Amino acid sequence: MRRPCKEETDSMRCTSCKEECVTLDAGTCKRCSEEVSETEEELKREVENLKAKVAFLSFWSPTGRHCHLSGCSHGPGFTDVVLVAAKDGPNGDPSMPVPAHRAILASRSTVFKAMLENEMEESQSGTIKMSDMSCDALRAFVDYLYAEAWLDEQMACELLVLAEKHQVVHLKAYCEMILVSKLNWDNSIKYYAFVHQQNAKVLLEAALCLILDNIYELQKHQDYWEFVNKDPRLMLKIYRAFLGKF
Amino acid sequence: MRRPCKEETDSMRCTSCKEECVTLDAGTCKRCSEEVSETEEELKREVENLKAKVAFLSFWSPTGRHCHLSGCSHGPGFTDVVLVAAKDGPNGDPSMPVPAHRAILASRSTVFKAMLENEMEESQSGTIKMSDMSCDALRAFVDYLYAEAWLDEQMACELLVLAEKHQVVHLKAYCEMILVSKLNWDNSIKYYAFVHQQNAKVLLEAALCLILDNIYELQKHQDYWEFVNKDPRLMLKIYRAFLGKF
Repeated sequence: MRRPCKEETDSMRCTSCKEECVTLDAGTCKRCSEEVSETEEELKREVENLKAKVAFLSFWSPTGRHCHLSGCSHGPGFTDVVLVAAKDGPNGDPSMPVPAHRAILASRSTVFKAMLENEMEESQSGTIKMSDMSCDALRAFVDYLYAEAWLDEQMACELLVLAEKHQVVHLKAYCEMILVSKLNWDNSIKYYAFVHQQNAKVLLEAALCLILDNIYELQKHQDYWEFVNKDPRLMLKIYRAFLGKF
Repeated sequence: MRRPCKEETDSMRCTSCKEECVTLDAGTCKRCSEEVSETEEELKREVENLKAKVAFLSFWSPTGRHCHLSGCSHGPGFTDVVLVAAKDGPNGDPSMPVPAHRAILASRSTVFKAMLENEMEESQSGTIKMSDMSCDALRAFVDYLYAEAWLDEQMACELLVLAEKHQVVHLKAYCEMILVSKLNWDNSIKYYAFVHQQNAKVLLEAALCLILDNIYELQKHQDYWEFVNKDPRLMLKIYRAFLGKF
């Protein structure tokens, strides 16, 4: 009897998962897979270096929630301005002023820079009133300007508004990224309407895409009739965008 | 005649370099190589995000050499302290004071923090004298505390001393990394002697390794006899380290 040719059973052992597989399932040759591993190692080292750099450049926040300097047991000194949220706290208490540094606010936001360098009222009084902002949003905003803030969906919405108003491009992109990750059919119309006012193109595009993909279900959406009444022109834009696809 | 079995010629085409190769040269299976590609993409995205974060957190430097805020046409305002290099400039001119922010110096260095928060002379006068430092080194040091500085070998040596003195851990590690990359047989004894005073373990270890690998050539090294005369105890340490290996 003829020994069966190995054509159907030609096999190799994957150097990564160690499993036997047939040649047809083969991916890369040994040299290429080793090169890829090296690239991965280099990228991991770069990530580590950049993380260390971010930690070095991060500032302790005057709100006291993030302290990036080991051994810093109290808030930072040398503050020369305070920010005050216009809205009172949850119990109607007047909101606590948040101390900050003019140099940092000016370096992070061109709006603060103009405000503080040009002898405007805020610069002379040393108090910046932040209109229409909750105390929590103000603290998260300041935390972000100094280092980092972990934002939930609600806070990302509030800070997106602030970031647009104060031209903090990096924070705006961060909020958009969070909100895109939270985007779903239920909140799609709400977000689409919300970002229209904020010039947030990434989120706008993502929300519109999701709506257009489900255009035949639009009328059944829980928010549809509310927005038809509240902002009919916005809903018309959706239909125009759909027809523009063809 | 029996058709030859494909045992010797079993081949696959690498999905990366597209070349034919035999099963023995195979690296990873298709699934694993796809997973690795995805990981690489994710790492690249992380690197981009971290770079954007570093750019956001980087401060414009008061030396005016790095300005990380677009539209910043002049140096930063709101400085509240000046640093002065003790050494004069290259032409004997008194060195220019470098303006800075107390809050930033204190956040980057525990030594500055203690100096500025504790009503020491420097805090009261608003002038910090930096002993034994060239004007260029001071500017590079301040640039680094604010954002970034590109250092050559000479500057990395000067800043390593400063970083140790002012306990700026991240800068010290950065200088060590630069100097390790510049390490060679010619400068190995000089660096070994230099880092002994700076508690720079990574560079010390690297320099010692290089010397021990060439121990039989040590006596012929250009710097050997100079250091035998200048610091014989240090040279003894090398021989003890060599014998300690066995």
